[in-house]
Amino acid sequence: MRIDIITVLPELLRSPFEASILKRAQDKGLVEVHLHNLKEYGQGKHNQIDDYQFGGGAGMVMMVEPIFECIEKLQSERKYDQVIYMTPDGETFNQSHANQLSLQENLIILAGHYKGVDQRVRDHLITMELSIGDFVLSGGELAAAVVSDAIIRLLPGVLNDETSALTDSFQDNLLAPPVYTRPAEFRGWKVPDVLLSGHFQKIDDWRHEQAYQRTLNRRPDLLDDKK
Amino acid sequence: MRIDIITVLPELLRSPFEASILKRAQDKGLVEVHLHNLKEYGQGKHNQIDDYQFGGGAGMVMMVEPIFECIEKLQSERKYDQVIYMTPDGETFNQSHANQLSLQENLIILAGHYKGVDQRVRDHLITMELSIGDFVLSGGELAAAVVSDAIIRLLPGVLNDETSALTDSFQDNLLAPPVYTRPAEFRGWKVPDVLLSGHFQKIDDWRHEQAYQRTLNRRPDLLDDKK
Repeated sequence: MRIDIITVLPELLRSPFEASILKRAQDKGLVEVHLHNLKEYGQGKHNQIDDYQFGGGAGMVMMVEPIFECIEKLQSERKYDQVIYMTPDGETFNQSHANQLSLQENLIILAGHYKGVDQRVRDHLITMELSIGDFVLSGGELAAAVVSDAIIRLLPGVLNDETSALTDSFQDNLLAPPVYTRPAEFRGWKVPDVLLSGHFQKIDDWRHEQAYQRTLNRRPDLLDDKK
Repeated sequence: MRIDIITVLPELLRSPFEASILKRAQDKGLVEVHLHNLKEYGQGKHNQIDDYQFGGGAGMVMMVEPIFECIEKLQSERKYDQVIYMTPDGETFNQSHANQLSLQENLIILAGHYKGVDQRVRDHLITMELSIGDFVLSGGELAAAVVSDAIIRLLPGVLNDETSALTDSFQDNLLAPPVYTRPAEFRGWKVPDVLLSGHFQKIDDWRHEQAYQRTLNRRPDLLDDKK
């Protein structure tokens, strides 16, 4: 898989892709992540990439031309499955998007900034608009990193233990059950007996019941989705 | 405001806090962000911070003792308004959380990792559990950065133009309207005439209507919340 991220702030994204699982996935050759500085496609002497919005109002708008130039250059080099724009008014990203996108070959992710991109980019170039939630960030960079992380960890071979992703929250519409590790007692607070019992069936049943109860209490909407 | 982020991967979080608005906010003295490496509170020769889960199963669990030690040290130095744990089964973070948290003085954010933290940390130390969405990340670090970014940009003086945050998506339960900038025509695609008209009342009306229609099409649930 290859992910091309287009941003006005590539420096913001360096460390997330140079640490931990995202670094290992790249070192193993399972994914290539390329950061593109949109300013290299800017216009005129000052590499301008944003301008005042038509009709007035606070906040700059990312210009149509640098984005077309950058994305069309990439598209001339290979076929992309999706050109994703990160924006608060996009479709809310969830685990099902992550699963689907993890099966693709080449993705472009455009990180919005300022007041967002010129609408003509969205109308004529973007194939998918994603939001990571109902909140506003100072830019789409962290959102692009979040989406990349959620996708990349699902690629076969990225996680050390392949069963690990399957027991995560959301993969079966249930939240994960509580977990405990040593010591068995801390300040008088004990680990539930069943987890120390060695009865694997009982442990399985307890975990399923706990996962169900936690989902019912915290996120009953996930149980409805199951139908 | 002060935000203390506790993580096993502080290096992952360096660049997001050293760029753009988050850097400027710190340079201006509007916020202090401190990254704490949980491994410094690890146990034994190897600074152990995770262990196998009781009851068996894939994935490691973050141990109770290093987390208590780190957080109680911070709490002995100042009073914290919230001790937030980032976890996929937490309450879904939204703009209203961001608004509320931006009014606080001192926050601790604990980034989960592996299979999460020992449940006793959640039962006895954490005051707020937040998720940034229905997807799983390789760790809570990016989620902690997202929450920090959403909060910090709301602090007075962080954004250059204070009106800017007020016209964002979600602040009034409406998505933002389309935006355009120069050129007025690109490949035959024109900017809507009204935006070039100079009639501020008509422009305002058009934007409100577009924001409403976009919300109705994409996120009718936001309109219900308004009641």
